[in-house]
Amino acid sequence: SCEFCLNSQTFSEKMSKVNNFRRYNPLIDEWIIVAVNRINRPWQGAKTTVSKNSEDTTSSDSRAPPEKNQLAPGGVRSSGAVNEEYQSTFVFENDFPSFTEFEKCAGEEENDDLFKQQEVRGVCKVICYHPDSKLTLATMDLKEVRTVIDIWNQQYVELCPKYDWVQIFENRGAVVGCSNMHPHGQLWASNYLPSIPLKKHQSQKKYFEKHGGKVMLMDYLDKEIAKNERIIMRNEHWTWLVPYWAFWPYETMLLPNRHVERFTDLEETEKQSLSSILRDLLIKYDNIFECSFPYMMGWSGAPTGSFLQQDCSFWQLHLSFFPPLLRSATVPKFLAGYEVFAEKQRDTSPEIAAKTLREMNGVHYSKRN
Amino acid sequence: SCEFCLNSQTFSEKMSKVNNFRRYNPLIDEWIIVAVNRINRPWQGAKTTVSKNSEDTTSSDSRAPPEKNQLAPGGVRSSGAVNEEYQSTFVFENDFPSFTEFEKCAGEEENDDLFKQQEVRGVCKVICYHPDSKLTLATMDLKEVRTVIDIWNQQYVELCPKYDWVQIFENRGAVVGCSNMHPHGQLWASNYLPSIPLKKHQSQKKYFEKHGGKVMLMDYLDKEIAKNERIIMRNEHWTWLVPYWAFWPYETMLLPNRHVERFTDLEETEKQSLSSILRDLLIKYDNIFECSFPYMMGWSGAPTGSFLQQDCSFWQLHLSFFPPLLRSATVPKFLAGYEVFAEKQRDTSPEIAAKTLREMNGVHYSKRN
Ligand SMILES: [Zn+2]
Ligand SMILES: [Zn+2]
Repeated sequence: SCEFCLNSQTFSEKMSKVNNFRRYNPLIDEWIIVAVNRINRPWQGAKTTVSKNSEDTTSSDSRAPPEKNQLAPGGVRSSGAVNEEYQSTFVFENDFPSFTEFEKCAGEEENDDLFKQQEVRGVCKVICYHPDSKLTLATMDLKEVRTVIDIWNQQYVELCPKYDWVQIFENRGAVVGCSNMHPHGQLWASNYLPSIPLKKHQSQKKYFEKHGGKVMLMDYLDKEIAKNERIIMRNEHWTWLVPYWAFWPYETMLLPNRHVERFTDLEETEKQSLSSILRDLLIKYDNIFECSFPYMMGWSGAPTGSFLQQDCSFWQLHLSFFPPLLRSATVPKFLAGYEVFAEKQRDTSPEIAAKTLREMNGVHYSKRN
Repeated sequence: SCEFCLNSQTFSEKMSKVNNFRRYNPLIDEWIIVAVNRINRPWQGAKTTVSKNSEDTTSSDSRAPPEKNQLAPGGVRSSGAVNEEYQSTFVFENDFPSFTEFEKCAGEEENDDLFKQQEVRGVCKVICYHPDSKLTLATMDLKEVRTVIDIWNQQYVELCPKYDWVQIFENRGAVVGCSNMHPHGQLWASNYLPSIPLKKHQSQKKYFEKHGGKVMLMDYLDKEIAKNERIIMRNEHWTWLVPYWAFWPYETMLLPNRHVERFTDLEETEKQSLSSILRDLLIKYDNIFECSFPYMMGWSGAPTGSFLQQDCSFWQLHLSFFPPLLRSATVPKFLAGYEVFAEKQRDTSPEIAAKTLREMNGVHYSKRN
């Protein structure tokens, strides 16, 4: 099962009808969500997951008959809900969401310099990419990858008017808490701009003001192209690179070649070539250790909701990949002592990671003869 | 072995004589250390560690004969160095340090808004707490815990004049990358103030200026005592609590009851009662799941080195505990998708965590009849 998408209790049974809240850490100027509604959810299979993962990262889930997989067409989820017999993509609301919209149940708010608490509202969804549990974005055909891009776009179109931030992301692999290998990602939309996109908002705005209206990530892309040390792959509309400041061992970023504020601003041809570079890059990732490479993937673009009335032209859309593997298919990067108290650290240079990815075979290891 | 303290190659063989560097992430205003000197170090036993951990968190290392443990007296480390036949505590320089001091080998510096790189210099040490691999801070006697406090103090006294930041910390347990159960911690000292203490420096300073010379964490402690919801334990000199903004499932903070800027400002009686509350709190941690509870522990106080000339009276010393376990001895908290792209989240309230710890048995599970 999956730490973030599925649960093994009846939703209505355990869910207390209170909206969750977030609290402010005044020491490091950062907010934390407190999702008390998720408290009663045990994570079955966690123990097995860890040991299974150390032996076989492709996981046995993909070998189980489709009707056993909670994310497959017709699959029965722990909440009792039954999935549609979907043929392409399929979206449903998370059975144990971190964000809810209980209109009449306001959380307690506090507003002191040391005790700041805000109620949070929103929605959490699971996005199944394909009916076949054995496929991944790296092994689907281009038309199928394109349907995922279209469902992302459709979700943004639907949710952007209402929510200040719509986070589309994917946790792939047991080392990032998802042991269900069925191809799927998630979407969490909230009534506020969360800590990390808020920082990105402020940084890009500051750069824009300081540099006479230049877009930070456009300038950055130009310089990276000139330096040509960290670029992995380019096509007409997109550039895939290892950021100069990458933290995760194989962290990368996918940038549009032109200025694009939001996902919904992408043109037809850009979405088409996105499906191709996205699949190419995931193939290279899988080929590093010849396993279905675990990663955290997330889109970031200009905020929405109340921000739609503001000028956000300093924003540039980007897709980030944070893969946790370091030296083999089973050795994850640990976030440890010094990194949580003082400063994060990486052990290889971003340039070596870029070279490794650039030179990686472009044919998926499972499809070679 | 231990991801952070030990390595399995000869230091002089593999270490390129270049100082490491750090790079700036302009999108989220944060620095990352790039420790290229650690690149060639493989982590033997990583695979075993993960699966071993899921079965037995007490680890088999503590059951091995002492001469096999690289951290025990007379132990032969992978670098070939042999430990002293120490009777109490023992400090040595990390065989594969993230910070070095090669005087003549300057790293390349860059200083652009988008490409900022600084050379870093410093020292990394391992601090063995006790000759007996089977003991921990939770099971040592008070006099022995006190020797650890004294060695911390001695290291601060020695290194503070030279380094802007001296981070004393401990990674305990395989889930935080340390599978060697010999009681030990670490110390990394650097010629600059790292990202997280820099934020704490700025936040406490701002609060001090805004509130007419009041110390943020002293005000915070006063209010927590009045609210009495998140206090776990107090003695004459120290208070142990769950911060209002705690992120890790059982995150806690230990605060002196009076204003103390730095560890070296602690008085004799405060160090004495520190050994007692420190052991009491680690006993409660171990009792949660009746295992040697994994954690990241780290001291933070006013910066040193060049900061010794400045007024840092807005700082309050504190010891933080970030334990990664969530629902059992084998289920760690995963830092996943939404948390790295948008905002961190916890699943239980800090108040429930405080109550659990407050009510936990005060006698170590291994010592009950
Ligand atoms: Zn999932
Ligand atoms: Zn260690």
